[in-house]
Amino acid sequence: MKIKVKREKLLDALHKLTSIIGSRNTLPVLSNVLFEAEGEKLHLTTTDLEVRISTRIESDVEREGKTTLPGKRLLSLVNKFKGDEIFIDCNENHHSEICCGTASFRLLGLAADDFPLPVTFSPIRRMQMPEGDLARIIDQIYYAVSLDDSRKVLHGMLFSLKENTFTAVATDGKRLALVEKLMDDFTGEEGDCIVPLKSASELKRLLGKEGNVSIVIGENQILFETENSMMTSKLIEGNYPNYRQVIPASFSKTVEISSSEFLSTLELVSIAIADSSSSFVRLTFLDNRLSFAASSTDIGEGSDYLDIEYTGSEISISFNPVFIGDPFRHVHSDRVNIKLNDSFSPVGVEGGDGFLYVIMPMRNK
Amino acid sequence: MKIKVKREKLLDALHKLTSIIGSRNTLPVLSNVLFEAEGEKLHLTTTDLEVRISTRIESDVEREGKTTLPGKRLLSLVNKFKGDEIFIDCNENHHSEICCGTASFRLLGLAADDFPLPVTFSPIRRMQMPEGDLARIIDQIYYAVSLDDSRKVLHGMLFSLKENTFTAVATDGKRLALVEKLMDDFTGEEGDCIVPLKSASELKRLLGKEGNVSIVIGENQILFETENSMMTSKLIEGNYPNYRQVIPASFSKTVEISSSEFLSTLELVSIAIADSSSSFVRLTFLDNRLSFAASSTDIGEGSDYLDIEYTGSEISISFNPVFIGDPFRHVHSDRVNIKLNDSFSPVGVEGGDGFLYVIMPMRNK
Repeated sequence: MKIKVKREKLLDALHKLTSIIGSRNTLPVLSNVLFEAEGEKLHLTTTDLEVRISTRIESDVEREGKTTLPGKRLLSLVNKFKGDEIFIDCNENHHSEICCGTASFRLLGLAADDFPLPVTFSPIRRMQMPEGDLARIIDQIYYAVSLDDSRKVLHGMLFSLKENTFTAVATDGKRLALVEKLMDDFTGEEGDCIVPLKSASELKRLLGKEGNVSIVIGENQILFETENSMMTSKLIEGNYPNYRQVIPASFSKTVEISSSEFLSTLELVSIAIADSSSSFVRLTFLDNRLSFAASSTDIGEGSDYLDIEYTGSEISISFNPVFIGDPFRHVHSDRVNIKLNDSFSPVGVEGGDGFLYVIMPMRNK
Repeated sequence: MKIKVKREKLLDALHKLTSIIGSRNTLPVLSNVLFEAEGEKLHLTTTDLEVRISTRIESDVEREGKTTLPGKRLLSLVNKFKGDEIFIDCNENHHSEICCGTASFRLLGLAADDFPLPVTFSPIRRMQMPEGDLARIIDQIYYAVSLDDSRKVLHGMLFSLKENTFTAVATDGKRLALVEKLMDDFTGEEGDCIVPLKSASELKRLLGKEGNVSIVIGENQILFETENSMMTSKLIEGNYPNYRQVIPASFSKTVEISSSEFLSTLELVSIAIADSSSSFVRLTFLDNRLSFAASSTDIGEGSDYLDIEYTGSEISISFNPVFIGDPFRHVHSDRVNIKLNDSFSPVGVEGGDGFLYVIMPMRNK
């Protein structure tokens, strides 16, 4: 393989690919990026055996071929190179001469034949949506995915397709975040699949702001494809819990609020309490005012309030400050609606764009 | 104590004071800031028993008095408050009502009487210099202080006064950094003292860009005083090694170079080697060129060069890449001089402003 490639393009590609490379791989070739030069394209691929990411960039290919090179070290190198063009010439021992500007390197690679082959699978259903939409959806819910390994199905995001609606859900049993989006043009069967958190995070990195991503779902695998990149991931097996039963059928009260003001007041008042799972902040909705209060025996107490439009009966609700703050940190608009019934029922946070967050109050007041 | 203070001023003061507060203090009052309100001033103090820092800010003092409040939590609070003015009212139980804008807090403090008293000492010598100069001097040498506890005297910076010259020195035995500065107006005896690294780092945070810092040195204590702040620190006891004997009497060759270009080329070439203490980069001075080369059996090899003015005989010298890079990371001008004799003798890096760095070559070539 002998190629010339723009430094900027290779750097951008390596940024997309190398984050799934772990620091210690049992299989050495998993530390490497697969290079495949063919026609006028260079295909680059990484995998951790669960997720596989490929991207292609334009390249002057003088001699077609393939090799693998250590991903993170190559990223450092390309990042620090000072020239505009990078020349890579790989010999039969998988060692590559890499030159850029006045600098010249030789990196020891591994045989491309040792790199794992892609998994093939039979598509059950397909859909597509703007890349920016899918990136936003993941960003709005990923923090609610359970980090506890005891229930494997909660360690991923539900991607559900039913009646022309795509629903993405994340929950850890204490709160739930979901985004719904109408899909006009999907083909195949309706159904659910569970995408691992790591794959969803990697996917976010791959998605741009323009263009569409097409999604192909199989029995155990999912494929995301954009104009120049693709990612396949294993799916988590099992049945996702019935998340609909957590969402109240209706809310009797709606309060519109600025998410940035809510968050800054919540964080201020939380200084009066320690970071423990039993700490809580009490929100009280009363005449045109939302008051925040928190206290602890060893630190002290704090309170503040925001002006709101609210004229119903007084309602006091206690929350874990992290869990009630999360949706406000990830909503993509400054005006959100808080929806509630009473002091003991689940509370909703609605952010527009189909975003809904549901949280159970704490019982300590 | 009952006071009103500008939020910005209190925030600035707490930033200067709270970094010496450790996360776990055997004596609870060491987690707190001492507040002393008197006249139109609020004096704030922290200590870790080795270093003591005080600063004063303007304040409307309605009722004089003193208390202590938890430093890091107060910093968070003042940082997140939304108003311009903060009201603090302390009751006889050392609990303070703290109000700002619409927010209102009560923080549990501790008695001011429990806060350690300042140490008094007899001055041996005094000097003063612009704050910015002392900050620069510390910044140019602190990284060379030994982090190895086995030789206690190397765990600080030498501040030496001799023949109207102030010299600050740091060394870990493998390299040495020093800055010399002429002092026209110092009074008292000539002599040396060793300032702990932690104190020097805290001092840098306290020093501004304008104004002078006066330095008062005693037998076991040193005092730094600026217009509104002061810091006292214990000194490290013992004799600093004779650093002069490490510095070659003369260098036969001088090469001027851009420090940013040197550093970026060094860091690029170092990608070919692992971060280990036996790794080295070889610099070769030859006809108007400085070449950089590094290699390792498991990664590969890299080389690059810079154009320089050099016409002497070819000299190759091997260095630990971190140690040869350090002075270039901390010099305060882009043009520096590399000074050398041959492949085996110590090499100097001279940065103007009285800065000199001396490093021994590695013997593996």
